[in-house]
Amino acid sequence: MSVIGETTLRVRYAETDQMGVVYYANFLVWFEVARVELMRQLGFSYKQMEIEDDSFVVVAKASCIYKQPAKFDDVIRIRTQVSDSRKRTISFSYEVFKDGVDSLIATGETLHVICDSKGRPKSLPDKYRRYFPLTRSANATTTRSAHR
Amino acid sequence: MSVIGETTLRVRYAETDQMGVVYYANFLVWFEVARVELMRQLGFSYKQMEIEDDSFVVVAKASCIYKQPAKFDDVIRIRTQVSDSRKRTISFSYEVFKDGVDSLIATGETLHVICDSKGRPKSLPDKYRRYFPLTRSANATTTRSAHR
Amino acid sequence: MSVIGETTLRVRYAETDQMGVVYYANFLVWFEVARVELMRQLGFSYKQMEIEDDSFVVVAKASCIYKQPAKFDDVIRIRTQVSDSRKRTISFSYEVFKDGVDSLIATGETLHVICDSKGRPKSLPDKYRRYFPLTRSANATTTRSAHR
Amino acid sequence: MSVIGETTLRVRYAETDQMGVVYYANFLVWFEVARVELMRQLGFSYKQMEIEDDSFVVVAKASCIYKQPAKFDDVIRIRTQVSDSRKRTISFSYEVFKDGVDSLIATGETLHVICDSKGRPKSLPDKYRRYFPLTRSANATTTRSAHR
Repeated sequence: MSVIGETTLRVRYAETDQMGVVYYANFLVWFEVARVELMRQLGFSYKQMEIEDDSFVVVAKASCIYKQPAKFDDVIRIRTQVSDSRKRTISFSYEVFKDGVDSLIATGETLHVICDSKGRPKSLPDKYRRYFPLTRSANATTTRSAHR
Repeated sequence: MSVIGETTLRVRYAETDQMGVVYYANFLVWFEVARVELMRQLGFSYKQMEIEDDSFVVVAKASCIYKQPAKFDDVIRIRTQVSDSRKRTISFSYEVFKDGVDSLIATGETLHVICDSKGRPKSLPDKYRRYFPLTRSANATTTRSAHR
Repeated sequence: MSVIGETTLRVRYAETDQMGVVYYANFLVWFEVARVELMRQLGFSYKQMEIEDDSFVVVAKASCIYKQPAKFDDVIRIRTQVSDSRKRTISFSYEVFKDGVDSLIATGETLHVICDSKGRPKSLPDKYRRYFPLTRSANATTTRSAHR
Repeated sequence: MSVIGETTLRVRYAETDQMGVVYYANFLVWFEVARVELMRQLGFSYKQMEIEDDSFVVVAKASCIYKQPAKFDDVIRIRTQVSDSRKRTISFSYEVFKDGVDSLIATGETLHVICDSKGRPKSLPDKYRRYFPLTRSANATTTRSAHR
């Protein structure tokens, strides 16, 4: 149902640490790359969203589960999808693979709040709603919230 | 009960992004800095732990909740503690403050597996156990697991 | 004659690469940290210079000579000075030491152009001139330029 | 005469700073990416060179001249060539373009010493000499050195 974006990148020497593997914070950098590419694949430019619509996709939560190390020069493939979409928030989920062997090396999630350039939360502009249709559970929020 | 380490650092220009705030992945870098300082405050050097005891504190999970932005030149204070300690794993929790105003700007957690230099999980060497006493729930794991 | 600023920092795990030493680009990050600290030691805040005076110290050239590696957890000391100061440009030079042993591990230089927030070159505002007095050779530029 | 490698990459959000442009140290990261790609285009894998031949291309000098800013989401093209090759050292030069407009935004150079995994200088292994033929001036070093 949901669009799944795919991004590939090659591990940079700069991204490794003295354990000989990719430093853990860099997975969040890759998530950002994957997120921006997903938006391009959905049909719009995140760069233009910031400039033209004063709408910033600000990170409110991020998490990553590391299963296997990534190494220098590895080709990494990231599958990204919108896991939740509400009036003012969007969540993405990520699956990180080592290309060729197709082994899942990490998964992650990020939750974002739409803000203006001053950092004030705002609703996602209507023109972007078609890329981020409200998730069903979000539609049902009012009726279901009592059960939480 | 648990030791709480404190680390301060000043936000680098390099750590900001074009939103004018600290890029989100850098909080995980700060967690690493805080973790290493906590170990020093506990009484040992993580550097020596790697070299002398072939024991690497490898990240298996990381998460961060972002509450307020950090900005260039801010002095950041991180309170770190061991939130869980088991035979082969250690968890840390982090609270990130903007110094002076004492406002909590982020919280985070990381879970680590002790590994040798080849990435194979191993038990935490005995000499480090006094810094990471087994958490009570860990002692009671077998009896309590049925209730989860 | 010239003020020499001193900054110390501890090498982060994030700054190492799989060679087991600090990745080369990070020395330029340290130069930035040292530059900002020199300005603070000179008597003003670079952060405020950007905000209050719409003056950005934009890098036009950077170089570094690497003599010895820096390693994780090393305490690094950087001695910084203004090596040249003209109407619209400022140059800094850096000496990087490993603390304790006092061995010089790297040297570097950066040349900067004062710009407004739109990236247009401008003269250094008068209020900052006392921190960056024109270097003698700069005063003599017109008469000496024929000899170059 | 010399082989020119080409690499393209897209500017990451992580690479920008609060000036709204790419932070200057990241150009050195790009140089590393471009250098590794040039080696691949020359016919070998730098990763394997480290693993199989205990030969590390260690940076001894790096410089960059910044002409125009690079911005988020820009596609960057880097032309790389071996500018000098001697018994134990290799130099690379880099030209950084903004794709599409073909404007040169930066140039750079790096000088490297071949070292073993312990950081001791060594000669470039013979099997790599065909990728890095001795430069003419290097051949003539002894006779010409008196004139320097």
